[in-house]
Amino acid sequence: MTYINQLVCVNCGRSYGEDESINYCPICGFQSGILDVQYDYLAVEKICNPTAFKKNSNFSMWRYLPLLPLQGMVGIQHLQVGWTPLYESRNLAGELGVARCFIKDDGRNPTASLKDRASAIGVAKAMEYKAECIACASTGNAASSLAGFAAAAGLPAVIFVPQRAPKAKVAQLLVFGAKVFSVQGTYDQAWELCMQSSGEFGWYSRNCAVNPYLIEGKKTVALELVEQLLYQYDGAVPDWVVVTVGDGCTVGGVWKGLTEMYRLGFLTKLPKILGVQAQGCRPFVTAWHDNTRKLLPVEANTLADSIAVGHPRNFQKGMNAVLESQGAFIAVDDDDILWSMTTLARKAAVFGEPAGVAGIAGVKQAVKQGIIDKNESVGIIVTGNGLKDIESAIKGGGVVHKIEPDIEAVRSYVK
Amino acid sequence: MTYINQLVCVNCGRSYGEDESINYCPICGFQSGILDVQYDYLAVEKICNPTAFKKNSNFSMWRYLPLLPLQGMVGIQHLQVGWTPLYESRNLAGELGVARCFIKDDGRNPTASLKDRASAIGVAKAMEYKAECIACASTGNAASSLAGFAAAAGLPAVIFVPQRAPKAKVAQLLVFGAKVFSVQGTYDQAWELCMQSSGEFGWYSRNCAVNPYLIEGKKTVALELVEQLLYQYDGAVPDWVVVTVGDGCTVGGVWKGLTEMYRLGFLTKLPKILGVQAQGCRPFVTAWHDNTRKLLPVEANTLADSIAVGHPRNFQKGMNAVLESQGAFIAVDDDDILWSMTTLARKAAVFGEPAGVAGIAGVKQAVKQGIIDKNESVGIIVTGNGLKDIESAIKGGGVVHKIEPDIEAVRSYVK
Repeated sequence: MTYINQLVCVNCGRSYGEDESINYCPICGFQSGILDVQYDYLAVEKICNPTAFKKNSNFSMWRYLPLLPLQGMVGIQHLQVGWTPLYESRNLAGELGVARCFIKDDGRNPTASLKDRASAIGVAKAMEYKAECIACASTGNAASSLAGFAAAAGLPAVIFVPQRAPKAKVAQLLVFGAKVFSVQGTYDQAWELCMQSSGEFGWYSRNCAVNPYLIEGKKTVALELVEQLLYQYDGAVPDWVVVTVGDGCTVGGVWKGLTEMYRLGFLTKLPKILGVQAQGCRPFVTAWHDNTRKLLPVEANTLADSIAVGHPRNFQKGMNAVLESQGAFIAVDDDDILWSMTTLARKAAVFGEPAGVAGIAGVKQAVKQGIIDKNESVGIIVTGNGLKDIESAIKGGGVVHKIEPDIEAVRSYVK
Repeated sequence: MTYINQLVCVNCGRSYGEDESINYCPICGFQSGILDVQYDYLAVEKICNPTAFKKNSNFSMWRYLPLLPLQGMVGIQHLQVGWTPLYESRNLAGELGVARCFIKDDGRNPTASLKDRASAIGVAKAMEYKAECIACASTGNAASSLAGFAAAAGLPAVIFVPQRAPKAKVAQLLVFGAKVFSVQGTYDQAWELCMQSSGEFGWYSRNCAVNPYLIEGKKTVALELVEQLLYQYDGAVPDWVVVTVGDGCTVGGVWKGLTEMYRLGFLTKLPKILGVQAQGCRPFVTAWHDNTRKLLPVEANTLADSIAVGHPRNFQKGMNAVLESQGAFIAVDDDDILWSMTTLARKAAVFGEPAGVAGIAGVKQAVKQGIIDKNESVGIIVTGNGLKDIESAIKGGGVVHKIEPDIEAVRSYVK
């Protein structure tokens, strides 16, 4: 059974029942008519509450099944996804100049990024709908996680990548057996071709922009964060939850998860959201500083490839997350992002990819600008594993000491 | 408190009490005088047994603290290590021609390999001994896991790598802030220099060969395997446990873990061990086929770098594991290893590095040779994440289809 009440268009507010044929508001179109899944929270509350959950022994994102848009377990694959570690780091808090600092390491998911939470839902939904194939356009974590979960389900996956897609990222897709089309054109052309092909051939579309269910998977990172704070840190609630922002889907999901936990009695106050972008691709930050709050698409230019989204497809949900939480957007440059990689690794022993760690520099910047107070605490979500981008690690890492195989060389270093 | 009874030399059988100054049998020397840690199992049994463990809510390797050579929690770091997922894959069982196939995905550890279990112990021990620095010689997973756990402890780490060490692997060490010496010479020279330096400067040595405690960390993968089989698969015991073999330490640890679980009443029969090596570096396989069972060091020549150990430093423990379990050693070539990567990823959705997955091809080969019967079941330990070696994934992966941004191109593929 499902607890879905309705799907509501974030643009016009019209509501729809769950229906296989409806993926976006048909009135507003897929560019702006993103749907939000709403549940019967009065019913959900009876099984999802702090007392009941203390006995929940399912340590994966599926512990939140009543808060997910699935009919049951039928489409759920064997891969262990979610319930990634939460750590407190005093060293990092000291470095960033905040009272407390929590790190949620979502690079510990099956294909090493937070996107696994969304792909797990996408594939489960495709199985429910008895789709014969699932498709997406991406070069990054969305694609590799889709390839992984589709392999688990034995479901054919078709992935459209732009011609400039890095070889290493494509390799992951091939290893999992996905069919990969390298579209000789831009990312937008690959995206359009994916949408068109899905329509024509009846493939289930995993593109987060037009699929209302994927964000429901992403929100589980926030559901877990709150529960883990409860069990591991006596219910400490950070003043800020920090997340990097690309198309707006992850930050939107995080905010939704926090509000649901507030509604269900797990949280007594709501944190503010700090949305962090790269200086080389900051459409949210720009809109935030402009009173109109309108999206102006830009050319992306940052090494943090997973948030290099010049035209965010989920702009409204992303903007709402920060507005509603009374938080802020902030941008950091690529050098700050490399600094974040080494600082997070050295202070908290977590190795994240550039887009996964930019929140570290974001906090430092926000403290400097007076957005975050030194008496406040932060919870930073690290969205992807550093092994996804060894090249950036090399840039940020430091120096090797070449020595002869002779103890004298070591002696002079020790001195 | 610790339950250690004694440390026994695997070569001469002499026993020693736990003592900071004793890392190997002083009579036999470090080349052959490896020590085995033995516990007071009668005392351990009272707290480590199937009834008590059903209530154990610590889902990490530290649930086995009484079976580990630590004085307590003092040196244990925050990183969530162990209790990695165990999956059954029917598709893979079908492909390999066995009755059942279980996969233990140890690439899901903090720095993405089984070596984290050993480094967690190494760093904890260094903290107990109040060492001011920890050192090792390695280019691979041992080094990156050491760098990660040392960063967690705020303990300086010095790592000696041979000059041919791949840049990407060195990058991980630097990100975690380790001091890296590139020794202009062979791996053996780097190893000797590390041993000499550790002695002279009082650094704690993580080299698995001469440190009797690290293998105790590695054995936890087998302790978990048995418990997870109990809870997830009604106590199914695979006829074979399959593990790849480099220096012999991991396979030795796996066998030790299995025998302990048998002794403590978690297992009713002991599986046989299948030790898998690469054809290009198979000193164990060669010794196995020779009646003398003597080690002949070789030049290593395989893409599975984590098991490219021509001179296994823990030969005796590795050989004993297979002998005592009445198992077998087998070798597979590099093409088989690449096949293993894609087969594991496509059939079971687990992406492992070459040395981590060679056991897949090992089982296929062993079935063909009649070593494993088609009615038997296997449990395969995948020791490292595929993201550690993207180059091999590229070699094994398959082909990308280049198309114009035009639906016609997709149509002709679909037809």
